[in-house]
Amino acid sequence: MYPMKKSLTVVKIGGNIIEDPKALSEFMDMFSAVKGLKVLVHGGGKKATQLSKQLGVSTTMVNGRRITSLESLKIAIMVYAGLVNKSIVAGLQARGCDALGFSGADGNTISATKRSVDKVDFGYVGDVTKVNSEAISKIISSGFTPVFCALTHDSNGQLLNTNADTIAAEVAAALSGTYNVSLYYCFEKNGVLRNVEDDTSVIEQINLKSYQDLLSSGIISEGMLPKMENCFYALKNKVSKVCIGNIYMIGADEELYTTITL
Amino acid sequence: MYPMKKSLTVVKIGGNIIEDPKALSEFMDMFSAVKGLKVLVHGGGKKATQLSKQLGVSTTMVNGRRITSLESLKIAIMVYAGLVNKSIVAGLQARGCDALGFSGADGNTISATKRSVDKVDFGYVGDVTKVNSEAISKIISSGFTPVFCALTHDSNGQLLNTNADTIAAEVAAALSGTYNVSLYYCFEKNGVLRNVEDDTSVIEQINLKSYQDLLSSGIISEGMLPKMENCFYALKNKVSKVCIGNIYMIGADEELYTTITL
Repeated sequence: MYPMKKSLTVVKIGGNIIEDPKALSEFMDMFSAVKGLKVLVHGGGKKATQLSKQLGVSTTMVNGRRITSLESLKIAIMVYAGLVNKSIVAGLQARGCDALGFSGADGNTISATKRSVDKVDFGYVGDVTKVNSEAISKIISSGFTPVFCALTHDSNGQLLNTNADTIAAEVAAALSGTYNVSLYYCFEKNGVLRNVEDDTSVIEQINLKSYQDLLSSGIISEGMLPKMENCFYALKNKVSKVCIGNIYMIGADEELYTTITL
Repeated sequence: MYPMKKSLTVVKIGGNIIEDPKALSEFMDMFSAVKGLKVLVHGGGKKATQLSKQLGVSTTMVNGRRITSLESLKIAIMVYAGLVNKSIVAGLQARGCDALGFSGADGNTISATKRSVDKVDFGYVGDVTKVNSEAISKIISSGFTPVFCALTHDSNGQLLNTNADTIAAEVAAALSGTYNVSLYYCFEKNGVLRNVEDDTSVIEQINLKSYQDLLSSGIISEGMLPKMENCFYALKNKVSKVCIGNIYMIGADEELYTTITL
């Protein structure tokens, strides 16, 4: 018999939770109360866009994706790794959770390559090449709770902007060799909705087959697509459990959310 | 016989080094090459002031000390913990140094209390109350090199601005229980100068007695005063060696710098 793997909870929170002080505070209450080993990954929210506007740095979007200029990257570093990450770390510490903030450069935890220019030059955007699960495991087993922002590095001194959903999936997948990992995508909705106007229309189970049907019928589209791809990526890489829902999902009480399976 | 303590090098770099890309790059080359266990503490430089100007946040100074409003604190968090800290961490990683960035909130490493309002309300400024040497030792013994910016927290969710020289002295002092600590204050000058206009007039040794003479004669004044107080604080708290000089001091070759003794 192999020794049983310890459980690890990876939670990702989206920008709309970060933007809402009450939601963020409630989330931190619940996240601090989650028992056992855990990792938090957070997005950036609208603060980077706001700061860009204030500084007169224009935000270019192509096909709904942000182009990261060097100036935009600096703003992302200030907002994601600075203001947002440290506010969450300090907030979790106040709640007795021994949080430790990370970009992918810290402890060389997440390496990436600058996305190659094909049709669109996305600028300083990184595609994850390696999650240093050994380094993250050392931090976790020392009793700390890593809090990742959506930045990686190329190991040559360049920080890169990387989607927070992708970071959560990659970190969960990499740690599933060592831990029994559950991955929770928390956002402002109750789950994946059959009707985007009706917050009670949560699809409670989605597997690879029903996902194809949901795609064909147009029920899942746009913003939800990359999130779903990340969910399946995590499951295919031995993550035990993947869910999408609101912040109450990580507490014990919430029944309404979407569970993704293969 | 007690087992011999391992050596630990604590280096603080000032704002003028951070402002100068060539100096910072040279410093990172040398710091990465320093053998054994090490810790870096960095100031913020003028970037926070520049960003404040760009955002129309006024900087108030009283007796040469910056008053930290909530808006100024946010800027400090973005610049110190974000832009400056992560650039240094990524730069050190590129040089094979396994850097991990910290504010005092991360890992609850440095606690502080908001400075009490006596004659002047300095705003969100923290006076260090406790360095968590156990947490920092865990990080160091896991093979990481902690890189601290000049922020602490009050353990109730509030980040606070704290002088980087003070953080370096407090961290060095706290770790001297576990390690044989050397503390290097690196800045743009060659050491403590007898004549501030003459960069070769380095005072090679200063002890408590000669310090009094240098104070009486006005040779040491203003900006150098709190730095000297931090040096003596570190020495009185069992730090083995304290030096002030340029960045080459931490390499093997530089002969010209100031050594402080009791």
